[in-house]
Amino acid sequence: MTTLTGHSFIAGARVPGTAGTTHGVSPATGEPLEPPYSLLDVAQVGAATAAAAEAFPSFSALDPETHAAFLEGVADRIDALGDDLIERAGLETGLPAARLTGERARTTNQLRLFAQVVRQGDHRGVRIDPALPDRAPLPRVDIRQRKVPLGPVAVFGASNFPLAFSTAGGDTASALAAGCPVVFKAHNAHPGTSELVATAIADAIAEHGLHPGVFSLVYGPGAAVGQALVADPAIQAVGFTGSRGGGLSIVRTAQERPVPIPVYAEMSSVNPVFILPGALDGDIDALASAYVASVTGSSGQLCTQPGVVFVPRGEEGDRFLAATTRIVDDASGQVMLTPGIARSWREGVSTRSERADVLARGAEGPGANAPAPVIHGVSSEAFLSDEVLQEEIFGAASLVVRYGSADELAAAAERLEGQLTATIQLADRDHPLAAALLPVLERKAGRILANGWPTGVEVGHAMVHGGPFPATSDSRTTSVGTLAIDRFLRPVAYQNLPDALLPAALRDANPWHLTRRVDGVLQPGSAG
Amino acid sequence: MTTLTGHSFIAGARVPGTAGTTHGVSPATGEPLEPPYSLLDVAQVGAATAAAAEAFPSFSALDPETHAAFLEGVADRIDALGDDLIERAGLETGLPAARLTGERARTTNQLRLFAQVVRQGDHRGVRIDPALPDRAPLPRVDIRQRKVPLGPVAVFGASNFPLAFSTAGGDTASALAAGCPVVFKAHNAHPGTSELVATAIADAIAEHGLHPGVFSLVYGPGAAVGQALVADPAIQAVGFTGSRGGGLSIVRTAQERPVPIPVYAEMSSVNPVFILPGALDGDIDALASAYVASVTGSSGQLCTQPGVVFVPRGEEGDRFLAATTRIVDDASGQVMLTPGIARSWREGVSTRSERADVLARGAEGPGANAPAPVIHGVSSEAFLSDEVLQEEIFGAASLVVRYGSADELAAAAERLEGQLTATIQLADRDHPLAAALLPVLERKAGRILANGWPTGVEVGHAMVHGGPFPATSDSRTTSVGTLAIDRFLRPVAYQNLPDALLPAALRDANPWHLTRRVDGVLQPGSAG
Repeated sequence: MTTLTGHSFIAGARVPGTAGTTHGVSPATGEPLEPPYSLLDVAQVGAATAAAAEAFPSFSALDPETHAAFLEGVADRIDALGDDLIERAGLETGLPAARLTGERARTTNQLRLFAQVVRQGDHRGVRIDPALPDRAPLPRVDIRQRKVPLGPVAVFGASNFPLAFSTAGGDTASALAAGCPVVFKAHNAHPGTSELVATAIADAIAEHGLHPGVFSLVYGPGAAVGQALVADPAIQAVGFTGSRGGGLSIVRTAQERPVPIPVYAEMSSVNPVFILPGALDGDIDALASAYVASVTGSSGQLCTQPGVVFVPRGEEGDRFLAATTRIVDDASGQVMLTPGIARSWREGVSTRSERADVLARGAEGPGANAPAPVIHGVSSEAFLSDEVLQEEIFGAASLVVRYGSADELAAAAERLEGQLTATIQLADRDHPLAAALLPVLERKAGRILANGWPTGVEVGHAMVHGGPFPATSDSRTTSVGTLAIDRFLRPVAYQNLPDALLPAALRDANPWHLTRRVDGVLQPGSAG
Repeated sequence: MTTLTGHSFIAGARVPGTAGTTHGVSPATGEPLEPPYSLLDVAQVGAATAAAAEAFPSFSALDPETHAAFLEGVADRIDALGDDLIERAGLETGLPAARLTGERARTTNQLRLFAQVVRQGDHRGVRIDPALPDRAPLPRVDIRQRKVPLGPVAVFGASNFPLAFSTAGGDTASALAAGCPVVFKAHNAHPGTSELVATAIADAIAEHGLHPGVFSLVYGPGAAVGQALVADPAIQAVGFTGSRGGGLSIVRTAQERPVPIPVYAEMSSVNPVFILPGALDGDIDALASAYVASVTGSSGQLCTQPGVVFVPRGEEGDRFLAATTRIVDDASGQVMLTPGIARSWREGVSTRSERADVLARGAEGPGANAPAPVIHGVSSEAFLSDEVLQEEIFGAASLVVRYGSADELAAAAERLEGQLTATIQLADRDHPLAAALLPVLERKAGRILANGWPTGVEVGHAMVHGGPFPATSDSRTTSVGTLAIDRFLRPVAYQNLPDALLPAALRDANPWHLTRRVDGVLQPGSAG
């Protein structure tokens, strides 16, 4: 078993905090977990950001092979933590080992995918407009463009993915791939899991001879250390996954700095699902079963959980609801991530129960933190007239909205806030209705699905895990998939520089074999 | 002569304003110009944004050929305005006809370049991760990504480029190319020029059968109409070129909306030039002459004017300054854009004169608004200890900072705010010093030049006219060059959609012959 020290990890060194301690807590038993974790005082955070700033020049200029090998080294060392990691994460989160094993694979595959991206190098966005000395009325000088990393990035981990959206999760992986050092603020719900993964990263940094400031892990009390991190002048961008309130307070701090910085906060989404009439021509029980599985999996604690489902009025819709009710009635609650999250869920469900009918309720699970899954129902008129019904309830709850006509459905879609996902369940006969809905959904969501369920976010090149506010604070990006690297880059142009002074990515000889856009025309590279 | 109506132009219709009138003013004579321009009341702005929102679905879905032909149509119709446009712009701005003729060519070339971009389609960012039905442990479904336009864009024109950064300037051209309708807030310093160009755009919209809401031109009093535009829920992004105060107030309004939106504000830059010792081995008179030309051209009213120049201490530096002084002493002031801008320039120069020596001063030009060009000088110690010396003076003024060592130069570079440009004048023997400066300058500027002067911004594929705050409000972009189109786009993923429901850009048959990234590998298209 890797020994846990209970301290922050600043530029390769264990640093005890002076602002008290916290414990991980088993949500299954309510017992505190050893060791205690010492919390940094706000004044201690500067050591991590200063080290990150110091690491930036060398890390941002790494050759692609060293850079990629480092990312793969992090993945290998996380894999090498073996069962210790799965066990600790299970203790701290209550998530089952199978789920955590899958999440670990996702995390290390993600790092390896970004290693490929780094080797291949298209994210560097090389553009060359060669000199035109004979152009009239004025000659053109040589201008070249590449994207450079923004600088040190602060990352805030989510409670619900202790691996894939945490210490070495998507934000960290994409920032490191971009060439940005990372200062990671641990989520206090899984401090031991965070320390284990931070050890893997620090070991890979040492092994590859990189500056230790490339990564730091900080534990802090409440929001103070996080806010100090965002306000620190060395930090140039922020990645965040969590609540709307938490995200917005970080956005505010970032905007109020003397030099404001971008914040990529993934916050809040109810992931509407539109069941069109033809979708109920098929196997209604299978559809209901898939719906309930998507609502209740991981105790419903997924950003893309289907929180609002539009179901047609009429006999087929009734059959779908009856099937859903049967399945939910047989379901039991699973342990939620923390007592606080379970409490918030109960409050949200209680508020909704005053505004909507309870259609189905399962059984309470073991312990105090495993509430019974619930499905509520309302008419589309009620949904349109009550904004509170659009609020996300994080956990195993979902709201069925019954609609009578295409116009009602379009009106409801138009009224939705920004979403991570929007899903259409349809058959061939629904194409005209779907085609009318799609332009609305494109304005509302980052990902549009047909005949599937939004939970289960593929990590690939085409994925978008993002969307208009309040799903995220910046709709122009994604926090999952290879495009996420673009969040941490900015373009710089070089005009008339001698070849010897150009960065390698832009030199005439193209030593990194990069794709280039020359006078506007793509010339694919041979790297990677 | 095209008849000027003096009214706003909302979705193809002339709309008189109810909030009073303004006049263009000849800065050369101080005389008001006919006709008077009626100003919209804040309540009238909604008609323009509503029309833009109504135009968005059809405009954003245009096929590339229709879309590109429309942009070319705008360019053709601006050209067809002929001398009327040059004369009116000259009357309103005091800029000479040769400069305005060049600026018109830049404006129409820019529109034609974006037409090429639209035909070619790489900005659509198509990515396809095909289904992997046999993948274990879980199959992968088909996921496709494209970039979609954000929605209606508000654009604010600059005073100093009545064509290239105004009604049909870079922000408008890139927003229209992205598929975003534009509501343009005219700069009150050149209302007639704006109306002429708006007529060209509206005619092209009608000719190509587009929805008239694709473009509106609004005149308003003070900042009220502009702020109302930014706050309007239909507006999804903002392009701005102007002062730091104006830009920041727009950023604040955009952030305080219930749904915040991105603002691309190009604001303030002193464009430092580093003359390294070896640069003075050559023709010092030619170097000084090029410096003064870059400081005084267009009365110094250029965003990239070299406002701070670092010159080595010692004999060669003294010779450079002596040459500069000789040239400036012989120079005369040129008419500035508005009496207000001339007044601000005098105030800035007066403040600087209390903090730095006046090294050279030319003669006053004709009239009240053509102040004499001025060069100030300070030591690098004084520069480092006085932040006011970093403030931009918009107009023909520049500050020479004398430095004694590479360390002093590096310290000064490190203390600079974010800049649009940074320039190094160097000879071969300066490469080690330049190589040490470059990583600092990359963090500070959007464009780095060697042995040139930063004025004269090429419109191409590799240009970056942007940079860290306060040069712009968003360092991740450029407002000049083809990459500017990315500002108005966001990615959307489509998961498992039937081919018939996919947008044309993503269909299997690739009807638009677009470049695609398939499973991470670029497959260049054949369009354009």
